[in-house]
Amino acid sequence: MTRLTGIFTPNLVPFDANGHINESELRRMVDWLIEKGVSGLYPNGSTGEFMRLSFEERKRVIQIVAEENRGRVPILAGAAEANLDMILDVCRTYADLGCIAVSVTGPYYYKVSQESIEHFFRELAKRSPIDIVLYNIPQFSNEISVPVVTRLAVDCPRIVGIKDSSRDFPRFLNTLHAVKPQRPDFSCLIGCEEILFPSLLLGADGGTIASSGVVPEVIMKLHRESITGNIAQARRIQLKLLDLINAMLYGTNFPEGFRAGMSLRGFNLGTTRQLLSPREQTDLEEIRGKIACILTECGYSEAAGTCRVVPKTKNSTSAELNVEQIVLGVLKSLNK
Amino acid sequence: MTRLTGIFTPNLVPFDANGHINESELRRMVDWLIEKGVSGLYPNGSTGEFMRLSFEERKRVIQIVAEENRGRVPILAGAAEANLDMILDVCRTYADLGCIAVSVTGPYYYKVSQESIEHFFRELAKRSPIDIVLYNIPQFSNEISVPVVTRLAVDCPRIVGIKDSSRDFPRFLNTLHAVKPQRPDFSCLIGCEEILFPSLLLGADGGTIASSGVVPEVIMKLHRESITGNIAQARRIQLKLLDLINAMLYGTNFPEGFRAGMSLRGFNLGTTRQLLSPREQTDLEEIRGKIACILTECGYSEAAGTCRVVPKTKNSTSAELNVEQIVLGVLKSLNK
Amino acid sequence: MTRLTGIFTPNLVPFDANGHINESELRRMVDWLIEKGVSGLYPNGSTGEFMRLSFEERKRVIQIVAEENRGRVPILAGAAEANLDMILDVCRTYADLGCIAVSVTGPYYYKVSQESIEHFFRELAKRSPIDIVLYNIPQFSNEISVPVVTRLAVDCPRIVGIKDSSRDFPRFLNTLHAVKPQRPDFSCLIGCEEILFPSLLLGADGGTIASSGVVPEVIMKLHRESITGNIAQARRIQLKLLDLINAMLYGTNFPEGFRAGMSLRGFNLGTTRQLLSPREQTDLEEIRGKIACILTECGYSEAAGTCRVVPKTKNSTSAELNVEQIVLGVLKSLNK
Amino acid sequence: MTRLTGIFTPNLVPFDANGHINESELRRMVDWLIEKGVSGLYPNGSTGEFMRLSFEERKRVIQIVAEENRGRVPILAGAAEANLDMILDVCRTYADLGCIAVSVTGPYYYKVSQESIEHFFRELAKRSPIDIVLYNIPQFSNEISVPVVTRLAVDCPRIVGIKDSSRDFPRFLNTLHAVKPQRPDFSCLIGCEEILFPSLLLGADGGTIASSGVVPEVIMKLHRESITGNIAQARRIQLKLLDLINAMLYGTNFPEGFRAGMSLRGFNLGTTRQLLSPREQTDLEEIRGKIACILTECGYSEAAGTCRVVPKTKNSTSAELNVEQIVLGVLKSLNK
Repeated sequence: MTRLTGIFTPNLVPFDANGHINESELRRMVDWLIEKGVSGLYPNGSTGEFMRLSFEERKRVIQIVAEENRGRVPILAGAAEANLDMILDVCRTYADLGCIAVSVTGPYYYKVSQESIEHFFRELAKRSPIDIVLYNIPQFSNEISVPVVTRLAVDCPRIVGIKDSSRDFPRFLNTLHAVKPQRPDFSCLIGCEEILFPSLLLGADGGTIASSGVVPEVIMKLHRESITGNIAQARRIQLKLLDLINAMLYGTNFPEGFRAGMSLRGFNLGTTRQLLSPREQTDLEEIRGKIACILTECGYSEAAGTCRVVPKTKNSTSAELNVEQIVLGVLKSLNK
Repeated sequence: MTRLTGIFTPNLVPFDANGHINESELRRMVDWLIEKGVSGLYPNGSTGEFMRLSFEERKRVIQIVAEENRGRVPILAGAAEANLDMILDVCRTYADLGCIAVSVTGPYYYKVSQESIEHFFRELAKRSPIDIVLYNIPQFSNEISVPVVTRLAVDCPRIVGIKDSSRDFPRFLNTLHAVKPQRPDFSCLIGCEEILFPSLLLGADGGTIASSGVVPEVIMKLHRESITGNIAQARRIQLKLLDLINAMLYGTNFPEGFRAGMSLRGFNLGTTRQLLSPREQTDLEEIRGKIACILTECGYSEAAGTCRVVPKTKNSTSAELNVEQIVLGVLKSLNK
Repeated sequence: MTRLTGIFTPNLVPFDANGHINESELRRMVDWLIEKGVSGLYPNGSTGEFMRLSFEERKRVIQIVAEENRGRVPILAGAAEANLDMILDVCRTYADLGCIAVSVTGPYYYKVSQESIEHFFRELAKRSPIDIVLYNIPQFSNEISVPVVTRLAVDCPRIVGIKDSSRDFPRFLNTLHAVKPQRPDFSCLIGCEEILFPSLLLGADGGTIASSGVVPEVIMKLHRESITGNIAQARRIQLKLLDLINAMLYGTNFPEGFRAGMSLRGFNLGTTRQLLSPREQTDLEEIRGKIACILTECGYSEAAGTCRVVPKTKNSTSAELNVEQIVLGVLKSLNK
Repeated sequence: MTRLTGIFTPNLVPFDANGHINESELRRMVDWLIEKGVSGLYPNGSTGEFMRLSFEERKRVIQIVAEENRGRVPILAGAAEANLDMILDVCRTYADLGCIAVSVTGPYYYKVSQESIEHFFRELAKRSPIDIVLYNIPQFSNEISVPVVTRLAVDCPRIVGIKDSSRDFPRFLNTLHAVKPQRPDFSCLIGCEEILFPSLLLGADGGTIASSGVVPEVIMKLHRESITGNIAQARRIQLKLLDLINAMLYGTNFPEGFRAGMSLRGFNLGTTRQLLSPREQTDLEEIRGKIACILTECGYSEAAGTCRVVPKTKNSTSAELNVEQIVLGVLKSLNK
């Protein structure tokens, strides 16, 4: 049995008018997500913009989330600090706060050899007071190759899983195939929203899914259908979700689309730290409108006011627009 | 109903001692594949090294395959020639030979805009006497983006499908989601061996799978289990296949690993046109030995003589090595 | 002394109304270039769209160019055919036609190991009846790494030079530094217009420069100033040329910008084989207008009719627009 | 006149036995570099491993360097902090410490649009109390495109230069050509060792050159020969330097090779923060030996003890190994 299973929601960070962390809103978000039934929380991931926070702010985020959580769900805490000593520092803190594990990327900025990366994780595993999840996200930091993952999984009990955001499904399957037979309790989490269902079907233990911060009801439904083998339903939800995912992923800097989505669910995210030009802010309003429409179609009436285009009529015959039916079905079954 | 479904086997090209196409061996391969039950043949694909043949040789390959096939299975003929006129030339020939469709890549060598690529395919669709399959393989030629694929699918009846070898599963799902509701008969074929099962499960109509030229029994079994919803079995076969796929894909120039694999099934592939250094030839022998072992474990006794390492004993407990049981099961069920 | 020195002009291929090679216009272009003083001709390069011609057309291009040349300047003939036998076939033909050498890229389409590439060139060198120039253009085909180039230069007398279009100047300097001390007669040609002057200054023997097909007067002037150490003048011409180069390189598919440029010098290039969408054709007219203006400013009055924007007035103070003065100066000195 | 000219040496950071910044050694390095005649200092660059330091340590590095410098040479301080507020914080501090300017990369880790990057630098320019140098290093952080650089140079007096480490010489020339005519005092610094001489010759104001921390005598000599137009000598030194640069750049994680080089000049750099595997540490010893040999050949006798291979004899005829003569000549002329 792996200890990390199900859907871990990457926590977005709300900012107040002064650009500081909006603590009360962050607490409200934690409560809301737990109420909606997500399996765990994942603060200080890429979605949580850890790289745009200060060291102290990152620690503060974990503290707030852990306090508000009060042990209700497991917390996977992002710990990709600048060097081994700083990582060990936050490992101690996050262990004390009751987090279940920390997530650590390959080194970022500089290119580093696979051999150095392996050696680094071995040292970290030896000295860490808390379980470690390898975080593979080659778009932003050095890849952790499958052979390195495999050797670390076999040799280091402290390393308990991988979160793979590479969007490379053949790689993910190779990881499952290489690691699981030798260490069945090694948790393989997928970090790519578009392929959550097939990943679960092929043996993933769960996922870190940014859209579970926006539509936790749908993602948890998708998770449930996937693991209970309700193939047809899972397939339909996964494909329909692509509209929302694409709207949030593209057209603006990451993770602005997800921040827009969550704000449409009633949260005050504040202004991003990565400045947008005036024109890009206007574009973002368009994207917000588009996301609002998709959410409205999905039955999230709190987003309706912002929907910019005329919603499809009931008797629309266009096959690709009946997200509504599907996800309303999801919600109905949730209400039961 | 799409016209292109199931597993199309990319035909390897055998060469004789003079480096010419070994016609009799190619005919024997065609018969063997059809006997083994593959759904269709796919000559002049990347696996068929079309780019290392002359224009006349490419035409000859299709002629041989079509003749030997005698209408038994549909033929998808690679037609990625140097310019529109040459493509139309082979389209006429391949239509006359009874091929079901041609496959055309995005332009190769030069970088070309998506808009030019779309315009090119529209022109081709207008003038082609045979159905066209878009061939997306961004590793080797210009990508054909999902919006372009979608517009072509909606507007051009002559364009009947896509073969996607990008290894990008989120992209493939986005293609399915964007195209199928608007044109259900558009055939979406996956060209990535590692993800055949999840692709079929999510809605792929089939695949062009190079390893179906080496272990057609296993791939057809995997296909059957996938489309009949035998999830557990399909998952197991897919993951086990990774050993063989990795052995054939890596460690030597593509497609030498597949040529080695097929030679182990009793075919005389001859010497590759892309020269290997003496050291690389020695390495290839190692890889052959490895592939032979995997094939022997899978019950293909004709490969046994070349297997270089001691085969696992019956009571091996290593979870990752019991390919044998699984695939012997496959073969048993095939014998019935 | 290297045998390949100076500026080799990559020949564009004019097409007639039926899309065939326009032989008389190609002959006229050859004469014009030789009259303008280019050092050599380079047909069937990337600029010559060899990849969009048939095998027979490529041979025909070389035959026309060689015939029309009548031995006046050396011809470097592109010979990047599909496999070793086909390359050797054209090598014999081009040797018979009196070409000085052939240029061969690393393999295209497929990824191939450096070791295989080295072995391939060794084999080619052993068997070729004509001198070989390595053609490094990693944008479009497999790179030929500096260590491979160095070993080939040291070991193979038949390999007499490299044409490097990688746009990677540190790489080019490393090539010069690694090869020249061991084989001073190995010709290092730069294939990147923007850095012709610094390349010559650091030891390049010459270059294959597409814009020498459009403004041969300027490129030959730049070459002369560079090799005679007229640093200030060479620097000024090189920087001013960037406007023209950028206009021709960007905004449309390669090499349409260069075709537009040469058509503005009075040649009928015909329609490209790589189709442009209607919108892109309109865009190309804009680009033509821009190129025409730059050419007009440079004193090429034949382009004046197509110049779309109001030419700068004499007393314009903008430093970056006085291409005119500089290049008129160039032309004046040419007239002397 | 630009205010930033000449060679700015990127400061390496020495660590003590506890892994903390070795303050006394850093001070000794500052004095040594100034005595050797470098034009300025550049602490907290990529070579200075700013990304592996804590926020406080980065501030401490600048404080130490500024104190020890006592106004002798200009200091360009790396200020690529996590967000705008943190950058402005260090800008104030570094201004107070007397630094001449700060250097800021494009955002790292996340991909960010060019428009956002431009807007960010405009905001920074409005609010910064100290001059800003754009730091383009697309290998590690988002590129700052030439059009963005140009607009910022024209519109923002606070932005006084660019340091371009992209290794893309055509890009650097385009920057010079686009910016200098409109803003002649905008400082264009090259951050690529292999092309310092051609960059200076084409109009660069100087460079940030990591090897100037190892062989400041040679780099300052190269700079002098370049700007005084001693072409032949500059060319020879530049090409000979490639051996040393390649030895330091490749074969180990950046910037370990430079740390090895500087340790061979008599400084105690301590152990790197980016762990190396035991095998990589052994490899590094090999590289150290190689660097030592090159330095010994160059007349730096303090490195002799570590040189692993037999130094070439006086009457060696191998053209590529007489670095000695050239650089001894350099040193002799320095002694005069």
